[in-house]
Amino acid sequence: MFFAVSPSSSSPARPPTDAEFSSSSSSSSSSSLPSICEFKSRIRAGIPHNSRRRLLLASSASFLLNPSLFPSILPAKAEEIDDELQQDEDRTVRIFRETSPSVVFIKDFRIAADKNKARPVNNPNSLAAETGEEDEDDADVQVLGVGSGFVWDSSGHVVTNYHVIEKLAMDQSGLLRCKIFLQDPSGKTFSREGKLIGLDPAHDLAVLKVDVSGEKLRPVNVGSSRDLRVGQSCYAIGNPYGYDHTLTTGIVSGLGREIPSPNGGPIRGAIQTDAAINSGNSGGPLIDSHGRVIGVNTATFTRRGTGMSSGVNFAIPIDLVVQTVPYLIVNGTATSNRF
Amino acid sequence: MFFAVSPSSSSPARPPTDAEFSSSSSSSSSSSLPSICEFKSRIRAGIPHNSRRRLLLASSASFLLNPSLFPSILPAKAEEIDDELQQDEDRTVRIFRETSPSVVFIKDFRIAADKNKARPVNNPNSLAAETGEEDEDDADVQVLGVGSGFVWDSSGHVVTNYHVIEKLAMDQSGLLRCKIFLQDPSGKTFSREGKLIGLDPAHDLAVLKVDVSGEKLRPVNVGSSRDLRVGQSCYAIGNPYGYDHTLTTGIVSGLGREIPSPNGGPIRGAIQTDAAINSGNSGGPLIDSHGRVIGVNTATFTRRGTGMSSGVNFAIPIDLVVQTVPYLIVNGTATSNRF
Amino acid sequence: MFFAVSPSSSSPARPPTDAEFSSSSSSSSSSSLPSICEFKSRIRAGIPHNSRRRLLLASSASFLLNPSLFPSILPAKAEEIDDELQQDEDRTVRIFRETSPSVVFIKDFRIAADKNKARPVNNPNSLAAETGEEDEDDADVQVLGVGSGFVWDSSGHVVTNYHVIEKLAMDQSGLLRCKIFLQDPSGKTFSREGKLIGLDPAHDLAVLKVDVSGEKLRPVNVGSSRDLRVGQSCYAIGNPYGYDHTLTTGIVSGLGREIPSPNGGPIRGAIQTDAAINSGNSGGPLIDSHGRVIGVNTATFTRRGTGMSSGVNFAIPIDLVVQTVPYLIVNGTATSNRF
Repeated sequence: MFFAVSPSSSSPARPPTDAEFSSSSSSSSSSSLPSICEFKSRIRAGIPHNSRRRLLLASSASFLLNPSLFPSILPAKAEEIDDELQQDEDRTVRIFRETSPSVVFIKDFRIAADKNKARPVNNPNSLAAETGEEDEDDADVQVLGVGSGFVWDSSGHVVTNYHVIEKLAMDQSGLLRCKIFLQDPSGKTFSREGKLIGLDPAHDLAVLKVDVSGEKLRPVNVGSSRDLRVGQSCYAIGNPYGYDHTLTTGIVSGLGREIPSPNGGPIRGAIQTDAAINSGNSGGPLIDSHGRVIGVNTATFTRRGTGMSSGVNFAIPIDLVVQTVPYLIVNGTATSNRF
Repeated sequence: MFFAVSPSSSSPARPPTDAEFSSSSSSSSSSSLPSICEFKSRIRAGIPHNSRRRLLLASSASFLLNPSLFPSILPAKAEEIDDELQQDEDRTVRIFRETSPSVVFIKDFRIAADKNKARPVNNPNSLAAETGEEDEDDADVQVLGVGSGFVWDSSGHVVTNYHVIEKLAMDQSGLLRCKIFLQDPSGKTFSREGKLIGLDPAHDLAVLKVDVSGEKLRPVNVGSSRDLRVGQSCYAIGNPYGYDHTLTTGIVSGLGREIPSPNGGPIRGAIQTDAAINSGNSGGPLIDSHGRVIGVNTATFTRRGTGMSSGVNFAIPIDLVVQTVPYLIVNGTATSNRF
Repeated sequence: MFFAVSPSSSSPARPPTDAEFSSSSSSSSSSSLPSICEFKSRIRAGIPHNSRRRLLLASSASFLLNPSLFPSILPAKAEEIDDELQQDEDRTVRIFRETSPSVVFIKDFRIAADKNKARPVNNPNSLAAETGEEDEDDADVQVLGVGSGFVWDSSGHVVTNYHVIEKLAMDQSGLLRCKIFLQDPSGKTFSREGKLIGLDPAHDLAVLKVDVSGEKLRPVNVGSSRDLRVGQSCYAIGNPYGYDHTLTTGIVSGLGREIPSPNGGPIRGAIQTDAAINSGNSGGPLIDSHGRVIGVNTATFTRRGTGMSSGVNFAIPIDLVVQTVPYLIVNGTATSNRF
């Protein structure tokens, strides 16, 4: 069964709750290992690797009594690995470092009815939103799902899948919100409420907008899906199960695929990839080895209700996005839905 | 649970229906984006990349009024990526281009009882089959499942898994058929009815035959499974969930594995890979980095009924195929099933 | 839902039974193909590849009558593949060859009550264990699950996940055992009973000990998880579903993740990877491209009860292991569980 890779709070593989997400942010391991890290930083310079580790453990006298406590810490066969493999790894590392600041985390949630009164629907960009001190983390806020997106331009437009914000778009109660987590140039995470700008269910695309000054935004490099070749490398960045800025890699497995859209019609020209795409990756970019966006990760062919990657995953081609998004920004809806 | 990677119409991850498959063929995205493609082809020569995209969008005057509609389309950091990574990708692209014409798509179906009268079982290669204008796409045809296979020789022999055509082999009604989709040298897809030539349930292998002249066939390059090493690269081509000519990559994860055969006994010497193998990949080739077939993708260790790749997938070693297939072609059955 | 990647005999994707595992060891395919292998070895020297295969099949005269029986066995386009790709593959092959002897297979089982009388709990390292001729393969032994681990030092300490041996640790009956399968330097597999040395449920770590002389052990090279970068290559070795010494590859997908520990608290600083991690991989090493252990494969985000890799998989960082294991060896429990 087809399974759109994003939010459904009732699915067995339910998206993480608020608490789960806050714990899955990129906090370094140093908080749980303060003494190690502190110690290592003191001795970093001028001491060979082996000595360093011995020093580390030598702080506990009992260990010195029993040499068998130490694993084999001879220098690894690192030297045998020549520069090329390292260059390969360096490229993937660099692609992630350069493109991940453009990827956003989208969280859909429902506020309590009485909170709605406190913050009118007509003014979603309240002071709280401006300062990043929104209060939706209260116990009376229900998270509906998570998805991904990417910064389209320096005006704050964000592209994602329609199905990521479908509940918000259909909301009659005025109680639904979506919050977008971004990274500023220094790597610090901040969040804003996302405003619906345009919807294209026929192509499973949507445009949101955040109220952020341009210098805090890093728009993606837009590539082309026209000259893609089966077999070329590709990279997905997104928030599967709420794990933010997850990088997965694979190849273009097929081109010209057809996948179902939220309104039931076909989306043509989809890119198939074996890079892992799971629930929560929806709306995030598929990137080529030059760091350019070639598609929007959208669906995986999987068992209904799991959102689990099968290795048969699909992205909407960027050429379709380039054709559609400007209309959505100007008109709020796509030509495909108007005619 | 073991799940043979091919056809079971009753499984939750049911193979695509006829309609689904016809829509998942490699139609390019140009049909939905005629103006873009046409336009681009006109301006391809001599215009730098940025200008090209601007020209593309410039055809709609309203966009020019608002520069914020344009994403960052600076030249990507492409130049930083040196030739080596490109060579790596080129190799995978070339392996696919050179080997995919040898891979076929097998569709098992049941014709209606009255259609059977019109086309006797004794003459499956009817004129309709010859011209590729078979009529099994009618509403009264029930698709039983899909699988993969590969062209073995220029006589039209096709190798696949026994379990892909098991229902056909066991059929008492005379109403079951299998249709094989091939590519001619120009890349055009055509189909023929497949005739059962030989069966080896003990090794989960079968040989079919299509009535096609040799110059329209591209037999595979047969490799050896004797000198494989855990860690070497491998490539699977097949039709998972009906998505034809899907390429997935991984490594040889293990050797000398034992997997269950359709008749309950063990198949020894199986190759384990983490290349994604899903329902519909069964019978397709596992290929090494020299473009040679090293195994027949057969099974994945997965939850019963899903056919979903777990990353623990298996192929029958090509040496076993080389030993078995000639017997099947000559005798119709394998020595292993006769003694 | 999070699913610890190891043993649960009641899960739908149940670990292989004893019989299944014994059959999944690395027996070469030669047993089922004796004539081929014997024949090949006779003609190995001095005969070009094509001739060799023809000779192989020429032993059956009937094949010579029909040239169409032979697939295309022209020399593959191997020559076009230049040395670099080969070097890449060689590196992965070498990483596996150098590190896999340090990886062990852990099997948890329950012996029958009357067998317990025959072999007192107080003397687990009986003669049978010493000679590798343990008798738990009898019909009255129930396998509870399988997991992985790695040799920590030449004293016979083995590191694994706590959850792999949790039932053993909680056992009140005295009927539970764990057996550890190792490889000696010549590659021969042998087994010993594992003795519980230390437990750290808060970090999902445990230390076992086998009574083996140091020269038969190959301790791992311990790396560091401090300087890991998202995008770098990584390699998992373990026993998914009982398939021993399975190698899977991927990249570091994320850092600083938080995963739940067996006692309910969080484990911080976890490494996320898209290398396939399935049920049975638990406790095995995650390795960098220098062959150094950077983490302990522990969990995958998957549908409850399947243990199936989703591509969102987690390892405990090696720095946490380096901090914890020496305490476990000396004190039997970790500071984190004492304070």
